Amino acid sequence: ELLLHFEDLHFADIAEILDEISLEEATYIVKLLDSEKTSEALMELEEDVRERILNKLSAKEIAEELEEMDTDDAADIISELSEERAQQVISEMEDEEHAENIVELLRYDEDSAGGLMAKELVRVYEDWTVTGCVAEMRKQAENVTRVHSIYVVDAKEKLKGRLSLKDLLTAKRNAHISDIFIPQVDFVTVHTKGEEVARVMQKYDLEAIPVVDEMNRLVGRVTIDDIVDFIKEEAEKDYQMAAGISQDVEADDNVWQLTRARLPWLVLGLFGGLGSVYIMKGFDEALANFPILFFFTPLIAAMAGNVGVQSSAIIVQGLANDNIKGSLLNRLFKEVGLSLINGTALGLLVMLFGFVVGQEQMVSITVAVSMLSVIIVAALIGTFVPIILDKQGIDPAIATGPFITTSNDIFGIFLFFYLAKLILGF
Amino acid sequence: ELLLHFEDLHFADIAEILDEISLEEATYIVKLLDSEKTSEALMELEEDVRERILNKLSAKEIAEELEEMDTDDAADIISELSEERAQQVISEMEDEEHAENIVELLRYDEDSAGGLMAKELVRVYEDWTVTGCVAEMRKQAENVTRVHSIYVVDAKEKLKGRLSLKDLLTAKRNAHISDIFIPQVDFVTVHTKGEEVARVMQKYDLEAIPVVDEMNRLVGRVTIDDIVDFIKEEAEKDYQMAAGISQDVEADDNVWQLTRARLPWLVLGLFGGLGSVYIMKGFDEALANFPILFFFTPLIAAMAGNVGVQSSAIIVQGLANDNIKGSLLNRLFKEVGLSLINGTALGLLVMLFGFVVGQEQMVSITVAVSMLSVIIVAALIGTFVPIILDKQGIDPAIATGPFITTSNDIFGIFLFFYLAKLILGF
Ligand SMILES: [Mg+2]
Ligand SMILES: [Mg+2]
Ligand SMILES: [Mg+2]
Ligand SMILES: [Mg+2]
Ligand SMILES: [Mg+2]
Ligand SMILES: [Mg+2]
Ligand SMILES: [Mg+2]
Ligand SMILES: [Mg+2]
Ligand SMILES: [Mg+2]
Ligand SMILES: [Mg+2]
Ligand SMILES: [Mg+2]
Ligand SMILES: [Mg+2]
Ligand SMILES: [Mg+2]
Repeated sequence: ELLLHFEDLHFADIAEILDEISLEEATYIVKLLDSEKTSEALMELEEDVRERILNKLSAKEIAEELEEMDTDDAADIISELSEERAQQVISEMEDEEHAENIVELLRYDEDSAGGLMAKELVRVYEDWTVTGCVAEMRKQAENVTRVHSIYVVDAKEKLKGRLSLKDLLTAKRNAHISDIFIPQVDFVTVHTKGEEVARVMQKYDLEAIPVVDEMNRLVGRVTIDDIVDFIKEEAEKDYQMAAGISQDVEADDNVWQLTRARLPWLVLGLFGGLGSVYIMKGFDEALANFPILFFFTPLIAAMAGNVGVQSSAIIVQGLANDNIKGSLLNRLFKEVGLSLINGTALGLLVMLFGFVVGQEQMVSITVAVSMLSVIIVAALIGTFVPIILDKQGIDPAIATGPFITTSNDIFGIFLFFYLAKLILGF
Repeated sequence: ELLLHFEDLHFADIAEILDEISLEEATYIVKLLDSEKTSEALMELEEDVRERILNKLSAKEIAEELEEMDTDDAADIISELSEERAQQVISEMEDEEHAENIVELLRYDEDSAGGLMAKELVRVYEDWTVTGCVAEMRKQAENVTRVHSIYVVDAKEKLKGRLSLKDLLTAKRNAHISDIFIPQVDFVTVHTKGEEVARVMQKYDLEAIPVVDEMNRLVGRVTIDDIVDFIKEEAEKDYQMAAGISQDVEADDNVWQLTRARLPWLVLGLFGGLGSVYIMKGFDEALANFPILFFFTPLIAAMAGNVGVQSSAIIVQGLANDNIKGSLLNRLFKEVGLSLINGTALGLLVMLFGFVVGQEQMVSITVAVSMLSVIIVAALIGTFVPIILDKQGIDPAIATGPFITTSNDIFGIFLFFYLAKLILGF
C-alpha cells in the first residue's frame, strides 16, 4: 500500500522523500520500487546522499538502475563510483548498446558538451521518405523521453540539419527528408565548454542542441534541463566564491564540511590582518602626534574592500557573459574616472564630518586625499586582477570576495599611512 | 545586398549587430527588414538600446513589430512605453485578438507566472478525436513556434491534462482525446512567483508549464527559454547585490550609471567607518598603555566582515532554494559550533604570531579571545538578519555584502575594545 502511494509520485518528489528518511529506509525503497522511477529519483539526490545509498546496493542492483537511466545520467553516476566498482557495474549491464554508449560518454570532461550530452536522440537519414521516417522515428522515440528536434544526417553520420515534429506532422507522406529539412542548425562539438553551450542555448532559445565530434558526425545532444542545472550550479559556485566559500556547500551540510569550505579563506584574511599590523608598526611614530589616524584604518580598509569587490564583481560578470569590449586603456580611464567621482563625493563627506566634529583640518584633508587614492588603487586592482587571471586561463571568479578585500586592506592601509606621512610630515 | 545578408542571420545575431552600430543605422535596419526578424531581434536587445530605437519609430511601426512578436514579448515591450504611447501603439494594431491577448497580459505583475507567460499554446478539448485534433492542432500550431505539450481542457476551458506530440503521432486515428491524454500535469497559477515557477520547472525538468487562472481555466503557458533568462537575471542581481552594486548594471554601462549603482553602498560604508572612528575615540585611554591594540582593528574588521559574508551567503542561497530546514535553535547551535571551531583555529594562529614576534602575551590573548567572540557574533548576525528579513517578506539578498560588512565592522570593533578593556583593564 505504501508501494502504491510511491508509484503515483513524481520522481523528483520521491527524491525529496529519500532525502528525508533514514539510509536503511531509503535503500529499502530503492530496491523495492520499479527502477524506472527510482533511477530518476537517484539522479535528483544530493551527491553525498546518493553515494551512501549506492554503497548499500550490489553492482547488479546499480546496473539495473542504470539500465533505466538516460546515458548522460548513467555516465555521471558511474563517474562517482570507484574504478573497480564502475567496472563491475558495467559488466553487470544487460543492454550492451546502452553500456557502450555510457562508456563512450565517460571519456569526456564533465564540464564539456561531451560530458553534458546524452546519446538518446532521434536521427533520420536525408534520403528517407516521410513515411519511412515516421515509422523509424516511432521506434527510436521509445528510448527518447522528449523528442525536441529530429536530427538529419547523411550516410556518413555527418550532421546536415534538423526537422521539427511539427514539420513532420504537416509534411506530405511521400516527400523526402532532403526536401523538407531545415539545413540551418546550431550545434556544438564534444569539446565545447559547458559555459559556451549554455550561452548558445540561451542566446538562440534552444531546448536541445546536437553535439558533433571532430569529423562533424552527430554523437549526442545536450538538453535544456541539464543546462538549467548547470547554469544554476555555476551561479551558486560563483556566488559562494565571491563570499569566500570554497567547495560546493549548503546551509544544511555538517559543521565539518562547512569548516573546510570556510576556514581557508578566513586564514587568508588573518594573514592580511597581521600584514596590516606590521605595516602600522612601521608607521608607529605617528602615534605621538597623530594618534587619530589610527582610528581611520577600518574606514580606509572598508572603502578599499568595498570598491575592490564592486569593480571585480562587474568585471567577473562581464567576462562570464563575454561582453567586455573595448581596449584595456579605455577601461583604465573609465575606472579612474569613476573612482574620481566616487572618491571626491566621499572625500567631501569626510571633510564635512571633520568640520562638524571640529577635527584638525589637516587630518581631514589627509583622510580625504588618501581615501581618494585608495579608492582609485582599489578599483584598478579589482578591475585588472580578474582580467589578467582570465588572460592566463585562470577562472577570474576567484579574484573576488576575500581575495580582493584582503589584498586591498593591505594596499589601502599602506597607502594611507604613506600619504599621511607625506602630508602631515610625522 | 546588405539586406540579403541580414535575412540569413539569426535574430540573436541581428540583435548583436544592432547593439554595435549607430542609432540611425539601427533604426534604419529595423524599418527596412521584415518585422518577423527584427521583432525578435528587438526583444534580445538591452532595454536602454531598445528604448532609444523605439523612440525613433512611429506608433504604427512599433505596432507592426508587435504583430510579429509572441504575446509575452509584446506585452513586455508595451510595458516599457509611456502610457500614452502604449495606447497609440495598441490602437494601431490590426490583429484584434493578438492585441486583446497582449492587453490581458499587461494586468499581471512582471515577476509572476502571469507576467512571464505567453498566450500562444496548443489547446484541445477532451471530447475531440485524434483526427480532428491533428487538423485543429495544425491550425493552432501556426502561431506557436514550439509546441512542447498539447494541453487538454474541458468545455469550460478548465485544464484537465496534457498530450505530447509523440503520443499524438503514435495514437490510433479514431481514438478520443479523453482516452489517451495524461491526466497528471504540473501547472502554476497566474499569481505564482517567478522564482517558484523556475523551481518547479527545474525540479520536474519541464520545457513549458501551463498557467491557470483562479477558476482553474487554462490562460497561458511559460516556456523554459524565458525561465532561463529569468534565472540568469536573478542570479546576476543577487551577485551584484552581494558585491554592493544596486540596479542592473554592466561593465560597459557609462560612468554615470555605474556611479548611481555603486556610490550609495560606498556612502553606507563611509558612515560605518566614521562610526568606528567614534567608537575608538571612546576607548582612547588605551592609546597610553596599549597603542598596539589599534594596529589590530583592520584584522578584527576583516574577520567580522568575512565571517558575516560567508554566513549570510549560505543562508541567502538556502532561502532562495527553499532548503533551510530545522529549527532556529538548531541553526543557532550550529553557527556557534562552527564559529568556535574556526575562531579557535584562528585564535591559535594569532597566539603563535604573537609568540614569534615577541608580543606581550596578554595582548595576544586579548586579540585571540576577542576575535573568537567577534567571529561568533558576526556569524550570528550574518545568519539571522537574512532569516528575519525573509520572515518579514523582505528579500534577504540585501543583507549580504556591504550591509553585513559595515554592520559587522562596527559591532566587531566595539566588541574588541570592550573586551580588551575588561581583560587588560586600561
Ligand atoms: Mg529500483
Ligand atoms: Mg555527464
Ligand atoms: Mg534566450
Ligand atoms: Mg526569447
Ligand atoms: Mg539529461
Ligand atoms: Mg564560472
Ligand atoms: Mg573589510
Ligand atoms: Mg521591421
Ligand atoms: Mg512579461
Ligand atoms: Mg532538473
Ligand atoms: Mg534531470
Ligand atoms: Mg517567450
Ligand atoms: Mg532573488
